[in-house]
Amino acid sequence: MSSALELFALKGLPMVSAGDDLAALIIAALDGRELRRGDIVVVAQKIVSKAEGRTVDLATVTPSAAAESLAAAVGKDPRLVEVILSESTRVVRSRPNLIIVQHRLGFVMANAGVDQSNVAPADGVHRVLLLPRDPDASAEALRAKLEQRYGVSVGVIISDSFGRAWRRGTCGIAIGAAGLPSLIDLRGQPDLFGRTLEVSIIGFADEIAAAASLLQGQAAEAQPVVLVRGLDWSAPIAPAAELVRPLEEDLFR
Amino acid sequence: MSSALELFALKGLPMVSAGDDLAALIIAALDGRELRRGDIVVVAQKIVSKAEGRTVDLATVTPSAAAESLAAAVGKDPRLVEVILSESTRVVRSRPNLIIVQHRLGFVMANAGVDQSNVAPADGVHRVLLLPRDPDASAEALRAKLEQRYGVSVGVIISDSFGRAWRRGTCGIAIGAAGLPSLIDLRGQPDLFGRTLEVSIIGFADEIAAAASLLQGQAAEAQPVVLVRGLDWSAPIAPAAELVRPLEEDLFR
Repeated sequence: MSSALELFALKGLPMVSAGDDLAALIIAALDGRELRRGDIVVVAQKIVSKAEGRTVDLATVTPSAAAESLAAAVGKDPRLVEVILSESTRVVRSRPNLIIVQHRLGFVMANAGVDQSNVAPADGVHRVLLLPRDPDASAEALRAKLEQRYGVSVGVIISDSFGRAWRRGTCGIAIGAAGLPSLIDLRGQPDLFGRTLEVSIIGFADEIAAAASLLQGQAAEAQPVVLVRGLDWSAPIAPAAELVRPLEEDLFR
Repeated sequence: MSSALELFALKGLPMVSAGDDLAALIIAALDGRELRRGDIVVVAQKIVSKAEGRTVDLATVTPSAAAESLAAAVGKDPRLVEVILSESTRVVRSRPNLIIVQHRLGFVMANAGVDQSNVAPADGVHRVLLLPRDPDASAEALRAKLEQRYGVSVGVIISDSFGRAWRRGTCGIAIGAAGLPSLIDLRGQPDLFGRTLEVSIIGFADEIAAAASLLQGQAAEAQPVVLVRGLDWSAPIAPAAELVRPLEEDLFR
């Protein structure tokens, strides 16, 4: 078990645009520093989505009848609601100014992650940003490039900030992961007195994303890439899709 | 905004028993190192509960009819269920081997936090450990002692690991906090393009607890006290009770 961790935000990343090579931008921002074995690079979802060109111009969207109806109920732009529904498999709850859906990737989240902030406005164009198409694949592609460059095994997390049931405030979570275990299963390990721990599966990648979120920020000062150094693990590597609780295990959908 | 963080686990803490002075144990484990202004000391709930003598010997418990009935439905010891219900204001969900309650402090959590692991077994005595009576007060008492010793403002978090709706795996969260803002409200701050951020209240203390959990571990190697260094904030100080979503705002109870 680790006894110390360091986290630091990369400085000097440029604004990210569609088509940018994030690995190249991260390597440039590392500015000659080497990644070490076991380092985890946490990348905010927004810049992954921007690099992947996941923007939609609302002027190009024609809302369905379902979107018009939900938009009227919650008081949102019907075109925005159309985009939210197109990214979702079901609406879990809705209230004025709030839509909580099951995203097509299984995440239960507000607005299907469709984001209107921090998207460069073009004149008269109202653009929104979707989650990456396959965040685990985005993480794996980035991991492979970083490993090739630095010659060591590293992990990559694509992070987002989610609201939670029962608790106020958002927390960083992992929507994509590669090169690390998203969950660590301690069941069957003895506790301090030699008995077996009852329920202990740790949301490892989510805890790392939450830690990184402390440096990523959300506003003008955002630092979207954070390096986490000092973790070790023996659990098998698994993607962030493993963090999604299957519907049949879920008591709150 | 911070650009780097360090976390380290304190070594050499002894097993904690009822009546122990946690501040004195932490000061001893710091072994001459000074706390700095803004340091946050994250303490696992279990050792706070042990120091506060929050153990119950199940042999002394007489289950109510409600506890007998729920125990039969979920397959747990009726005396344990009685203790869980005595710590709860309502049962939110129950299934075989699972009881999710609203704890008297508002937390929605499994088993009201009543824990059978890592409690020293006495011969023939089956003891369980409850959450601290008032974790925000526990945090404040510890904070005051540490501040008195080191002469600087520090924060204290009492952390626990909670399961989550919709996601697998537990995550560290703050059940008590003192000397830091539990939430940071960014609403009204401009985004990168000068527009106002829509929904951005960060669960700051929960993210810190999640980060510390990466070092605290759960099993035989547990490191219950973690020091987090490098955070700064301008938000007002508020206790962890602020992290509990009021029932009237909650769509999932």
